This record gives sequence, C-alpha cells and structure tokens, in this order.
Amino acid sequence: MRQSQMLIPTMRENPADAECTSHRLLLKAGYIRQNAAGIYSYLPLGYRVLRKIEAIVREEMERAGCVELLMPAIQPAELWHETGRWNIYGPELMRLKDRHGRDFALGATHEEIITSLVRDELTSYKKLPLTLYQIQTKYRDERRPRFGLLRGREFIMKDAYSFHADEESLDERYHMMYDAYQKVFSRCGLDFRAVIADSGAIGGKDTHEFMALAAVGEDTIAYSDESQYAANIEMAAVLHVDQKRDETPLPLDEGQASTNDSDAIHISFFRDGEANVVAVLYRAIDEVNDIKVKNALDVTLLESISDEETVDFDVFDQTSSIQILADNGVKNVVNGVLKMNGKLLHFNINPDRDLTHMTFADLRMIKEGDPSPDGKGTIRFARGIEIGQVFKLGTRYSEDMKATFLDQNGKSKPLMMGCYGIGVSRTLSAVVEQHFDDQGICWPLSVAPYALHIVPVNMKNEDQKQLAEQLYETLGHQYEVLLDDRNERVGVKFADSDLIGCPIRITVGKKASENFVEVKLRHSGESEEMAIDQLQDYIEKQLKKA
Amino acid sequence: MRQSQMLIPTMRENPADAECTSHRLLLKAGYIRQNAAGIYSYLPLGYRVLRKIEAIVREEMERAGCVELLMPAIQPAELWHETGRWNIYGPELMRLKDRHGRDFALGATHEEIITSLVRDELTSYKKLPLTLYQIQTKYRDERRPRFGLLRGREFIMKDAYSFHADEESLDERYHMMYDAYQKVFSRCGLDFRAVIADSGAIGGKDTHEFMALAAVGEDTIAYSDESQYAANIEMAAVLHVDQKRDETPLPLDEGQASTNDSDAIHISFFRDGEANVVAVLYRAIDEVNDIKVKNALDVTLLESISDEETVDFDVFDQTSSIQILADNGVKNVVNGVLKMNGKLLHFNINPDRDLTHMTFADLRMIKEGDPSPDGKGTIRFARGIEIGQVFKLGTRYSEDMKATFLDQNGKSKPLMMGCYGIGVSRTLSAVVEQHFDDQGICWPLSVAPYALHIVPVNMKNEDQKQLAEQLYETLGHQYEVLLDDRNERVGVKFADSDLIGCPIRITVGKKASENFVEVKLRHSGESEEMAIDQLQDYIEKQLKKA
Repeated sequence: MRQSQMLIPTMRENPADAECTSHRLLLKAGYIRQNAAGIYSYLPLGYRVLRKIEAIVREEMERAGCVELLMPAIQPAELWHETGRWNIYGPELMRLKDRHGRDFALGATHEEIITSLVRDELTSYKKLPLTLYQIQTKYRDERRPRFGLLRGREFIMKDAYSFHADEESLDERYHMMYDAYQKVFSRCGLDFRAVIADSGAIGGKDTHEFMALAAVGEDTIAYSDESQYAANIEMAAVLHVDQKRDETPLPLDEGQASTNDSDAIHISFFRDGEANVVAVLYRAIDEVNDIKVKNALDVTLLESISDEETVDFDVFDQTSSIQILADNGVKNVVNGVLKMNGKLLHFNINPDRDLTHMTFADLRMIKEGDPSPDGKGTIRFARGIEIGQVFKLGTRYSEDMKATFLDQNGKSKPLMMGCYGIGVSRTLSAVVEQHFDDQGICWPLSVAPYALHIVPVNMKNEDQKQLAEQLYETLGHQYEVLLDDRNERVGVKFADSDLIGCPIRITVGKKASENFVEVKLRHSGESEEMAIDQLQDYIEKQLKKA
Repeated sequence: MRQSQMLIPTMRENPADAECTSHRLLLKAGYIRQNAAGIYSYLPLGYRVLRKIEAIVREEMERAGCVELLMPAIQPAELWHETGRWNIYGPELMRLKDRHGRDFALGATHEEIITSLVRDELTSYKKLPLTLYQIQTKYRDERRPRFGLLRGREFIMKDAYSFHADEESLDERYHMMYDAYQKVFSRCGLDFRAVIADSGAIGGKDTHEFMALAAVGEDTIAYSDESQYAANIEMAAVLHVDQKRDETPLPLDEGQASTNDSDAIHISFFRDGEANVVAVLYRAIDEVNDIKVKNALDVTLLESISDEETVDFDVFDQTSSIQILADNGVKNVVNGVLKMNGKLLHFNINPDRDLTHMTFADLRMIKEGDPSPDGKGTIRFARGIEIGQVFKLGTRYSEDMKATFLDQNGKSKPLMMGCYGIGVSRTLSAVVEQHFDDQGICWPLSVAPYALHIVPVNMKNEDQKQLAEQLYETLGHQYEVLLDDRNERVGVKFADSDLIGCPIRITVGKKASENFVEVKLRHSGESEEMAIDQLQDYIEKQLKKA
C-alpha cells in the first residue's frame, strides 16, 4: 500500500491523555483514535493488525474443531431474565429499549444467546460434543475505561462455547482449548502464562486465565522460574517445607521472649456466614489468604473481624467455641512469641509441643522466593494482562435455560458447557506492551501491519523513486509492503517508520543508482547494505527466523 | 468439514413465520435463526456465505484503492447534534444512555463518526483524495422488520466514505465505486441493475441504487430491454415520440366529441409552497409524476389539490393567475376531449393549434412499453431489492461538522464527500431470492458455503465410508468440502443436501467398491457417474464455467 493513499496520522509529541505504553504508541503511530471514553476507531494500520490476530485465532479454532457462527450484539432481555443475570449484572451491562419499549442488552457475553440457540437443536447425545465460536464486538460499560484498548467499553472478543454429554468430554475439550490458546498467543509473539484462576461467582469448576506479562497488567501472577507453573497470586498453593532454626526449645512463658521476627505468630479473627468466630494463627512475616481460609472452612461467606472488636480468646482454652486454624508456616516456629493486636500473649511457643490441638493448613499468600508448588523451581511474581480465559461452566446455564438432551438411555439431562474467551483487541495492546522501544512499536512479523516498509529517502530523486517503485512492485507480489511515497523530509519518514514499527525497513538512498539499498531490522536495529538481488534471500531468512 | 461436527439444523417443514423465499430457505436449510424481531444469528453455514460475500467486497474495494478501518457501533450523541440528525433521524435510530447518563446512538450509518475522525487529519489538499471503508454491523429500529435478513434491525453493511478537494475528484471516485459495485454484484452471481435514484432529502446530487431483481423487492425499476438504462420508476425520464392518429383536425368544440381514450386529456391541480395554483394537463392514459412537476416548477414543496376543492379554471383564459403545464404526451392528441373532474370542457382539441400558450414538459410516469430514454430498446418494469447505493454527498456533512482543508492557494474549504454502501447481509438474501428451486437453495460457486458436498449413501457400508473419507481427505486439500458423515437415511441426506445447496454433490453409493461415484450439479440437476480419477478434471471444468 502507498502511504500517500493511507490514513496514518502519526504524532510528533506524546498524546497527553495516554495512560500506558500501548495506549500512547497506538495513538502516536496512528493506529487508533478515541471516539468516546473507552470507545475507539481502528484506523487502517490498527485494523490490519486486528485482522491478523483474528486470522490466527480463527486458524487455531478451526484446527481445534470449533465451528464459527455470528450471534447478534442486541439481545432480548427475556433471555437474561431466564438466567437471572438481567438483575445480577449491574450497570456494566449496557441496556436499551426499542421503539416498542422492549428491553434489550448489548452483549457483554453470549451464554444466554448461545444456550437459547442450541437448546432446540442439540436434543440428542448423538449431536454432542459441539464447540461453536464467534469473533465479535462486545459491550461492557466499565466504570473506569482506561489504558486504551486494554479496558474499553466496546471491544472485540473471540468467544467459544462447548456442549457435552458428560464431564469427560468437557475435560477433553477444555484441554484442547487450553492447547489452542497456547498456540494463538505464542504465534502472536507474546510472553504469557496460563494461570490457575478463581472460578469465582459463576460457579464453574476449573478455569485458567491466560496472562500476557506486562508491568501495566492489573493482576499479579505467581509463577515458577523453572516450570510451567503459574497461578493467580490468590490461587497459588504454598508448599510447606520443614525448616526450623537450630535452637533448643525453651519452656513456655519462662525466661526471655525471643525477638526473632520469623518466629513471631500473629492472630487474625474471622466470622463466617453463621456468626461462628474463627481464629487464624500465622507467622508475622506472612499474610493470610482469605480465599484459602474460606476453602479450609468450606464456607462461601467470611468476613474479617477488625482489630477494634475485642475477641475473648485464649489459645490454650480447648473449651472455647472459637475454632482455631493455623497456617502450615507456624510449624516451623521455634521458641516463638504469640501476639494479638500487638500485645504479647505467650512466648517460647513450640508448635509440636504447644499447638497440637489446632488444625494446620495452607492459609497464607504465596511470596516471591517460595518454592514452586509443583516442586520445580522458585516462585517469582509478575504483572499480567488477562488476554484469555478457559472455563468449565458445567450446567449453570443449561439448567436455568432448560437446555437438555436425551442420553444413550433416553434420559433427559442438562448439557455440560464450557466457555472460552480471547480478548482480541486487548491482545493487540498486549503485543505492543511487550514489543516497543524508545522510537516506537516493534511488531512481531506474525501480526505486523506490513512485513516490509520501503522508504525512499527522496521521492524527487528519479533513481530513488524508480527503484523504490520497482521494489514495491516486485516484492508486493510476495509480501505485504508499505511504500512511503510521500514528499516528506527523510527525518520525518524515518521517525514515522520507527514509530509504525514494520519488522523490515528497506531504505532506498544514494546508492539507488547502483541498485544498492539499506535493510534494517526494526527489532534489533541491525542494518546492512545489500544489492537488490540479495533482498529476496535476506527476507526469506528473516521470515524463517520469525 | 464433517457434518457431524457442524450445527446445520435443517427443517422438514416450511417454517411458519417465513415471509419470502430467502427467509424461508435460510431458516429451513439451517443458515440463520431469529433471536428477536429483525435480529438474527448466522449459523455456521450462513456465516460462511456471509464471509464469502465480505471477501468479494473487500477485494473489490482494495482493488479500487479504498482503505479499510473499523469504527465503533456506539456513537456519542454530540456528533449527531452537530449535523442535526439526532433530532431528524426519528425512532429508527437506536439510542441508549451509559452508566453516567450520557446519550449514545447505535450507528445506523457513520457519516458523523468518519467526518469527526478525518476533520483533524485531512487538513491539506496534499492528503486528498482518500476513500475509507469498513464492514460492520449497523442498527436501524425498523417499524416493520420483515423478510428475514432483507429488512432487519441489526445487519451488516460495507460503508465507504470518500474525501475530495473538488467535484472532479468526487466524480472520478463515484465512477470508480460504481464500477467496483458492478464487479461485486456480478461476482456474487446476481442479476441486478444500477438504477438512477432520487437523492431525496439528504441533498446530494448524483446517486445510483444497485437493485437485485426479485419479485419480493420493495422498489419498482424501469429498465431497458436492450441497454444498461435503469431508473427508479419515479426517476425515469420519458422520451417523447411524435406519434399522432392519422385524422384531420376538426374545428374546436364543433360537431361530435371523439371517444378515443388515447386522445382524452385530464387536468390535475397542485399548490406550491407559496400557495400558487398550477394546472397540469396530461393524457388520461398516463399518470402524473409529482417529482417531475416539482422539478419543472423548481419548487421543493408541492401538494396535490383534491377533486373536492373547486378550482375556477379556464384553459383558454390567458389572464388567469393559474400556471398551466402540459405533459409532452398531450402533443400527440388529435381531436381530443378535455375533461376536468370527469366533466367535458372542450372537444376537438388539437394542441399545435389550441394549446400553444402553455409549457410542455416531461411530467408523466414512465410505462412498460415506452421507448428507453437512452433511445435503445423498450422499457420493462421489474421489482428490485436495494443491495447498494453510491451517493455524492457534497459538503452536507463537512460544512456542519467544520471538516475543512487548505487548498493549493491556502484557502480553507469544506471537504467534498461521497458515501457508498453495500448491504452485505441483504446481498446474501438477494442471492437466495435468485438462486433456488423447489428443493432448496442453489448457490453460485462464488459464495457457496462449500463447493463440494460428499454424500455417502450408507456410512455403515465400509467401502462407501472408506471412499467418502478418502475423497474428503484428497479433495479437501484443494476445495472446500462438506462431508455428510451422519448415520442418517439416504433420503434425509439427499433432502438436506438439496436444501443446503452446495454446487456439486458427489454421491458415494453402491459402486464405491469399483471407485465410481455419482456427480450431480445442484443448479441444473445434471448428473453423471464417473470414476474417481476423473473427478478432478470434472470439478476444474465446473469451476472454470462459474
């Protein structure tokens, strides 16, 4: 494409309202423009990248046996009433009335629509399993849209939904989707982790989030530096390691209290949904993980009791109604002090001897430096952008919406379901967050708007113009080529070229008359002069590397 | 693709709510499902056809030098206030409020958004001309959504917008788009006409509508049976042909009045915006065309005066304030009668002699059998579905929205604009309206969901199954193939195959063991038995024909 016939409104200055790297560079390099808070236009370059990502998603979905369809964005409220989500969803769900006063939602997600579509069709086990997907615009009225495409109100998602006769089939599909997602994000050139996530309120069982590592990410990931293990920080199990200071246990509450921080034990109190009070003992150097306490107690509601509320508690009173839990880390304490609201209760506590009456469990937040729960390597933390999620929904939607099938014995059962999302426009931003330098974006070849950028230094020089046009013509048959045919100063052209970030730049300059050009790799900055008959081999070599 | 892994919910009975052929067949063959009035899901087969049409549109747009982008569906009300259309558009424009109570429209069209996008960027004549397009979902809250995808409330359009420094450049682009549209619709296999249309209230100058000929169409087209001439029936000029009965002119109002219908003259009265009364004389066998009267008078407002209102009128009173116009057809009258509200006023009127004081013009509706206005052939009528429109907007939007550029002399001018739409989902339906028979859809190869449909008669027969799988594998490398691998009765399979309408069916039956199959063309019904090693040549021959 000729740059003179494109709309690539690059900026010389950083846009004032940009909130992170990808937002800044996509605006500055002329890829996107904001139309309203959280609502963007994809300008020609931005749209090209979006379509490249969509093509990769589509290929991997097809390869995994998924079938594409397209559902509407406007969804009748009746369907959302069937699942109760019309009321649950809150202001994030955009709503409108048609000319007859009927209520509609703008699709934030499509569980209701897809379930209503298949409930009349997938009526027999013979038609199962089936996985359908779409690439479509979604609407969520975020309270704080920000970071450009990372948290928008109108955005593009791939969402897939699978239907099964039993859990084994759902498991199998879940793993296929998991693998397909790995391929999608690898092909997009992303450094990412598949992270064990919280299935939360939707009530499914297994779920993984795919996180692109980036400082701007809103989630913290705990991952192993030696294995594939990665989890949302709140979901990461802590592997208990026996490791005590080498010190002789002293008699309880006799002599002098130790001042060793690692051996200080704190207490936090919680109240469950039935007003039972629970005490949790943990080392002062650790932090309690509420989700783990909830899981240990097998309750869904748990609130922490503030320090202001006095709890009548004696750790050694075994007649008390207060249940006591202790984090596994407490087992490593030697001659420890026990504190409540900063007040010393006991000292020279040795758990093997003094705390045998309480339940020990993994109750703390994982920390950097902890061993990885899978036994391989050490835990590190990173920030991540959620770019995808795979989720076993089970029968949550099929039961509410009466989507049933007849099994092999003629028995009616609700369909087992899974759902699988990829944030397509968010992936675009995540790639930029990982591929840039001071001069602009450095696209991976797989998603670059153009592989080659031909930049004649001076369009008024006849040799340069002619050679540039010739290369544009010949290379254009095989590769995606952008030609900077503008009458701009060379400084502007180079600055724009770096900003736009096509992987390979071919500069046509003074040696044009000798059929020599300069080739520069955007990512490494490597450049070399070569005769034009060497170009083809060079480009092929670079494409193979990518 | 294996049919067992698809969602193709065909029906045995005609759907009760189907309102026309395409609606009925797309539902029955499992291409679409309705989610709400005028709101549809494209099931896997439907979505494949949609993507084929999109690909053709995209190719022809790129070939014509248009650049693709993607604008949001949600548009801030402020922009629609700038052009006044927030108030003009009426209930067809879907509106919603975000969580902060701000007004938004769901894009029915994108003139406002695109003009706001370019007004900060196309500031110099050097950046002109530029044509941008998108393929995107549009929203119009039709009062009566009907005919399936033909008149929906959420539908897919290609909309393009061009920007120019002057009218010549706009003209050139207009013709390029006109040509590109011809290619798009020809490639989709449509019988269509580019029709001169009314620019109506938008106030542009030239406009053509592209009409797919179909009985269900809501517009009437007047077209030539020998040339490319076609016009919206109200826009078709009438070529005047001198053609009188061979009869001697008799003295005015003497003797006996003729009873020849073709020589009866009627009068209709109109009142313009300034209360002037106008009389229009026309032959009783013709019909007055209000638009032509308006144009002849050069007024924008004109209402017809009903027969109940008495108008004091004497056709020979040259002092009257009533302006008299006569349709050209009146010139052919010989010894005519002049009637007003059925009452005979005069007879033996011979216009050359008696009506020389009035203005003659083309004021009537064209009729079937009239000569074509371009002098080539005869006018025929047809019903058409509007599938595209090209439109010279001029400066209507750029003036309102202050989208100006500096010309070569440094003078600020409003951008000249054109807009160009294609109803993508409507085109899909139009193709079905033209390609079907009693058994189902007969897709043209260019937009068929699959070129080949392999149908093994009995999947439990090992020879048949094996050969079908082998053909699916080998042909699948080159062509798009659907394999009916279901354990269904052969009658069901054939009925589904005809309904779905892939162009070439390969039936694998009893002669599978001898490597013989039956090949049948969906369109003509032609079928022949052939050895599988002849298949490739046969398919290639068919593809070449298409």
